[in-house]
Amino acid sequence: MAETFRRVAERARAASRTLALATRAEKDAALIAMADDLVAATEPVLAANADDLRRAEAGGTPPNILDRLRLTPERVEAMAQGLRDVAGLPDPVGEVVRGSVLANGLELRQVRVPFGVVGMVYEARPNVTADAAGICLKSGNAVLLRGSSSARSSNAAVVEVLRAGAERSGLPADVVQLVPGHSHDSVKELMRARGLVDVLIPRGGAGLIRSVVEESTVPVIETGVGNCHVYVDAAADLDQALAIVLNAKTHRTSVCNAAESLLVHADVAETFLPRVVAALQEAGVTVHGDAAFAAYEGVVPATEDDWDVEYLSLDISAAVVPDLDAAIEHVHRHSSGHTEAILTRDQAAARRFVAAVDSAAVLVNASTRFTDGGEFGFGAEIGISTQKLHARGPMGLPEMTSTKYVVTGDGHVR
Amino acid sequence: MAETFRRVAERARAASRTLALATRAEKDAALIAMADDLVAATEPVLAANADDLRRAEAGGTPPNILDRLRLTPERVEAMAQGLRDVAGLPDPVGEVVRGSVLANGLELRQVRVPFGVVGMVYEARPNVTADAAGICLKSGNAVLLRGSSSARSSNAAVVEVLRAGAERSGLPADVVQLVPGHSHDSVKELMRARGLVDVLIPRGGAGLIRSVVEESTVPVIETGVGNCHVYVDAAADLDQALAIVLNAKTHRTSVCNAAESLLVHADVAETFLPRVVAALQEAGVTVHGDAAFAAYEGVVPATEDDWDVEYLSLDISAAVVPDLDAAIEHVHRHSSGHTEAILTRDQAAARRFVAAVDSAAVLVNASTRFTDGGEFGFGAEIGISTQKLHARGPMGLPEMTSTKYVVTGDGHVR
Repeated sequence: MAETFRRVAERARAASRTLALATRAEKDAALIAMADDLVAATEPVLAANADDLRRAEAGGTPPNILDRLRLTPERVEAMAQGLRDVAGLPDPVGEVVRGSVLANGLELRQVRVPFGVVGMVYEARPNVTADAAGICLKSGNAVLLRGSSSARSSNAAVVEVLRAGAERSGLPADVVQLVPGHSHDSVKELMRARGLVDVLIPRGGAGLIRSVVEESTVPVIETGVGNCHVYVDAAADLDQALAIVLNAKTHRTSVCNAAESLLVHADVAETFLPRVVAALQEAGVTVHGDAAFAAYEGVVPATEDDWDVEYLSLDISAAVVPDLDAAIEHVHRHSSGHTEAILTRDQAAARRFVAAVDSAAVLVNASTRFTDGGEFGFGAEIGISTQKLHARGPMGLPEMTSTKYVVTGDGHVR
Repeated sequence: MAETFRRVAERARAASRTLALATRAEKDAALIAMADDLVAATEPVLAANADDLRRAEAGGTPPNILDRLRLTPERVEAMAQGLRDVAGLPDPVGEVVRGSVLANGLELRQVRVPFGVVGMVYEARPNVTADAAGICLKSGNAVLLRGSSSARSSNAAVVEVLRAGAERSGLPADVVQLVPGHSHDSVKELMRARGLVDVLIPRGGAGLIRSVVEESTVPVIETGVGNCHVYVDAAADLDQALAIVLNAKTHRTSVCNAAESLLVHADVAETFLPRVVAALQEAGVTVHGDAAFAAYEGVVPATEDDWDVEYLSLDISAAVVPDLDAAIEHVHRHSSGHTEAILTRDQAAARRFVAAVDSAAVLVNASTRFTDGGEFGFGAEIGISTQKLHARGPMGLPEMTSTKYVVTGDGHVR
């Protein structure tokens, strides 16, 4: 491990010890100070961002990625507002998750505590820098940020401001640090820092997440790949179903909770297929269909790969299934375990789909787009976990904590 | 991946889908059937165990390991009773962890669901085979068991009985399977079975756990290494402290919640050290002490390594610390994060120690031996997690589950 990385990680650990004992009032004051400082530093932050944009343009970065990289006064204000919003949320640290008095009089409490040091590996958007720092600080965790090298000037400028804000309010600046270096080596060091880093959260494309999951010896929370299915049951309200399919697919295509695959019960295929194909095509969606769908004009015959792909675009795979169990079986085989929806008025069908489908979120008569920390009322979201360990689904502040048992006695021995 | 392993894992997945939908009554009936069958099969199980014992003796296995390997009619009955006890515990699956109605009328519930397929890697004791199978079955998980090769005949015999019991009661036999093969390759396959196995739990020595944690791409729950500290504060009741130190060290030495290190506040050193050294030595304990302790006869001067070691024997490291913060600092540097105790009548000292010490369990005026699923009233324990992700401390049935969000609407779109 490079000595510079070790020093950074050890400073994070030391800062985390102080932060773990900070009161909610102290943490909220730091978040507000960071927000105020960020707005005050709009000019230097935008100047740093202009550096990144110049470099990216010179490198031939496509316009949609450039747009994600770009900061504006409004986006800086939004980052600051995000920090203020987190200050307004309840502090998860110290919450008593369960408690009891044992038969022998020992008092047992399980209480929420910070993880300690959290590593974040993320791509493109510089706003994640402030979001992640705010959520980690409020949950009592020091954070090591490893953004993409394309945003390195912006991230450095933002982190400098956040550190100064934390320090100004009396917390150690090292509660927020950038991982030194921009090569893949710096990600490797985070992944190997078992004992120095408590949890690693990758946010970004499927490739980034896969490589972190496979190589990290630090425990990882996997986020975000969504091959989400909408199943239109025989007993669906077809008007509702049409609206939900359109919303799930087209409301925003680049997000993990967008629908990527449509399954329709054979009993309603004849009525529903012409309507849904026409509506999707009118909205600019390319339908990659099985034989039943491919009978409609403009539908592209699906290949085997289409059932597993997360398009993140105006594309959807579509198949007719003979019954509910075939729909469940299709989901088991092809889903990434993010979000699936059943559209039905049949209570027994809904109950069976909800019980059998093994995904982070299962929705009944609602768009897949609702799987979201904001929609769920969490106030802040660090990502959507698609793993089963620790946290599953949208992760808010409580998911950024561990617990410990506190046991109080009066000379108790066994 | 070997084809035989893949087939076994795929059968586990298929069985887990059925098991996830089983009612509590069905699962409890299977546990009772398994218990009854185990008692009925005492003779063949003991015969298989005799094979293992012969092989172990021929290989020169030491008597204490032989004893852990040995089954008796009483131990078989105890395994069966363990299964019956698990049948008596509440079913964690389906528990609503939280629920609310969102502003838009969507009904949100977070419910406990099984992980799916759990892999267990463990050493020596054949009783873990039945314990793990029972806990996994009750929590709705299919289990892949990889016991030590020294117990292979016993484990095979026990698993055969458990599978028959499950099947007899209407569940798939494949809810319990042995991982094929006895070489380290079979552990490797479990560790690489991402997507086929949901969680891997190693139980055994520090070497086994470290290798699984470092090599596994399947999410791991780390269990059991305990370098537990007892800190005797300036304000301790010294009679209580003496009893607790003795209990924590000598009640059972081979377990992870035994005390391995004693810290004493300088203000009470002169009074307490002669008493505690004499009492420990009388109980057969070798004290590995710092300079202050080494002034007493029979105390072995501690080396730097002594502060980090989990003795699991009648040994304890011991040091005098100048104050509470030095004790906390010592714990931060040397603890494995399992269990630490403070002995004090000073409320502020207890509060500070509890807040600052970052371990799975922090005890006040009680023996470290209380960190235990049985003592905590969990009824069954699959191990004691020393990691911060997912579960920390003794793990009962709820810790063997994940959650999913169930969201119910009436045509909701964004």
